[in-house]
Amino acid sequence: MFAVIMAGGSGTRFWPASRERLPKQFLNITSANSLLEDTANRISPLVNKEDIYVVVGKNHAKLTDNLIGGMGVHILTEPIGRNTAAAIGLAAVHIARLDENAPMFVLPSDHFIADTDGFIKVLRAAAEAAKSGSIVTLGITPTRPETGYGYIESGKAEGEALSTPFFAVNRFVEKPDLETALKYLASGNYFWNSGIFIFTPKTILAEIERSLPNLYAGLHTIAKAIGKDSYDRVLESVYSDLESVSIDYGVMERAKAPINVFKADFGWSDVGSWQALYELRREEYDDQQNLLLADALAIDSKNNLVYSNKERLIALLGVEGLVIVDTPDGLLIADMNRSQDVKKFPEMLKRAGRSGLY
Amino acid sequence: MFAVIMAGGSGTRFWPASRERLPKQFLNITSANSLLEDTANRISPLVNKEDIYVVVGKNHAKLTDNLIGGMGVHILTEPIGRNTAAAIGLAAVHIARLDENAPMFVLPSDHFIADTDGFIKVLRAAAEAAKSGSIVTLGITPTRPETGYGYIESGKAEGEALSTPFFAVNRFVEKPDLETALKYLASGNYFWNSGIFIFTPKTILAEIERSLPNLYAGLHTIAKAIGKDSYDRVLESVYSDLESVSIDYGVMERAKAPINVFKADFGWSDVGSWQALYELRREEYDDQQNLLLADALAIDSKNNLVYSNKERLIALLGVEGLVIVDTPDGLLIADMNRSQDVKKFPEMLKRAGRSGLY
Repeated sequence: MFAVIMAGGSGTRFWPASRERLPKQFLNITSANSLLEDTANRISPLVNKEDIYVVVGKNHAKLTDNLIGGMGVHILTEPIGRNTAAAIGLAAVHIARLDENAPMFVLPSDHFIADTDGFIKVLRAAAEAAKSGSIVTLGITPTRPETGYGYIESGKAEGEALSTPFFAVNRFVEKPDLETALKYLASGNYFWNSGIFIFTPKTILAEIERSLPNLYAGLHTIAKAIGKDSYDRVLESVYSDLESVSIDYGVMERAKAPINVFKADFGWSDVGSWQALYELRREEYDDQQNLLLADALAIDSKNNLVYSNKERLIALLGVEGLVIVDTPDGLLIADMNRSQDVKKFPEMLKRAGRSGLY
Repeated sequence: MFAVIMAGGSGTRFWPASRERLPKQFLNITSANSLLEDTANRISPLVNKEDIYVVVGKNHAKLTDNLIGGMGVHILTEPIGRNTAAAIGLAAVHIARLDENAPMFVLPSDHFIADTDGFIKVLRAAAEAAKSGSIVTLGITPTRPETGYGYIESGKAEGEALSTPFFAVNRFVEKPDLETALKYLASGNYFWNSGIFIFTPKTILAEIERSLPNLYAGLHTIAKAIGKDSYDRVLESVYSDLESVSIDYGVMERAKAPINVFKADFGWSDVGSWQALYELRREEYDDQQNLLLADALAIDSKNNLVYSNKERLIALLGVEGLVIVDTPDGLLIADMNRSQDVKKFPEMLKRAGRSGLY
């Protein structure tokens, strides 16, 4: 079995900790390790290290190699970001050369999962379905009317695999507004789309060939160069012309192969903002519900998140509900409820040409 | 005429900008220069540089010399802090050797004065009274029921000097509670005690001799060593045994010489807290009443004070009424209304033995 870790993201919601040169997946915000390292370690009970493929942008290849290259994983470099269909397709043509019928786990590199055992158990079940030619998605039971996630509408129950129930998929839906999200939550037959997929290279490449023939042609050209001296040159010349489309929109919504959603309740979060991180790590709160990931002193202060490299003492006095993020060249002090707007700063700094700060 | 700048203070209310090694008078919080430099420059229209005496603790002598030694002022080092009566006495014995009948202006080193011309005008008037043997204090007309200042109760009006009205002094009173401060404000015959005094060396030394004979004896021993090789040794051995008492309590309240309070309204502030600093510099507010003494970006944020060495970008999002002070090894984020409690942090850090941070 193989794993594909999608590490091409470039979020801005964890500014100033995240930067163009250091996207979220490289940050140690959920544990002592980066999200990327945790993702690679989490899949290790199921997949040999040398069967893990990390797809990453050229600018972050060196950083990725420094972090997890030593494990023996493969790093597949994208010359330019071309969205998830191309990235998954690139990994699929590499893996297909080894075993086109082996299940491959497609994993976002920047999510949090609390229950690794539960995660492994669901993936094991999903792998069985993938081997028989299905596309499997993992759906998270919604616990709130979240407007920041995509949803999967499930159809009829199709059974259980290793005691994990799974369902047909009626459709994938984009991030809803609050009213729609409330309906989804009430209806009981919507899951959050975890962005985790399981299929074989054969299945997914057949779907890409049918739905995105131009992308398939490009991937085919790249595939022929694998293992040859010309690989880097071919990749460089072909990749930027590939169609840029998401796997959900470009492939899943038009797939002919059976698609199943497996109910996956293993404490998942996409860690989409500082506020989400604060809510995730509640076991580490002090007695005033402060999450102090820093060298910090707090007097009469509660419900704050402080994140730093611990190079400086941070003192809080009489403050509440703040996010404080301290880095060597940038400091954020925000109302935690405004976490979604943090991305405005890197936008402003980019417009102002303050290179390095965004 | 002579000036004595009292630079022995060691406040903690401007932590983390102020430290034991860097008290408030050395900070550039009210202008581009330190409060100490501004104090020396402010008196320059009236006093030659070589007639300015700065009294400072041993630990800060080098820093003082670096900041204002180049002006040609005299730096008088205290081996150990022994409160204001001893510090003023030390300066007085030095100045008395040159001219015991010349007015000396005793100036705190860490106050702010908006109107330098007005300040000079009042001092000029006060100098005349001092020459005739009076002790002169400068009293600030209260504008609010401040509980952080000492007060002077004035007696009958005694006239005007250079169009500055002056009054007899009934008594000096310590920092009042709010109820008492409200009474003082309403009564109309209380001034804030600016801590600025004017007298001749002869007058003040005579009062010290009468009220604090032991202190006087010690000063006399020091005086005899001035200009000799033994000075440092004598100072070191005598100073630590001097009585530690404030000039207000030890001398003023029992003085036999006439004491006058001159009405001094020249935009004075003792800059007693970050909040006081914020209120002082309102002309520099941005359009959301933020005082940004920093490289800062503010979105939907108002009434904040940000102070830094400008080595790092500081971004505010949706926050209000905060004091943010950024230094290389310590960061403060406080509710501005809690400015008086900032001193708790250096206290905590001292107890924790975190040397350098307090």
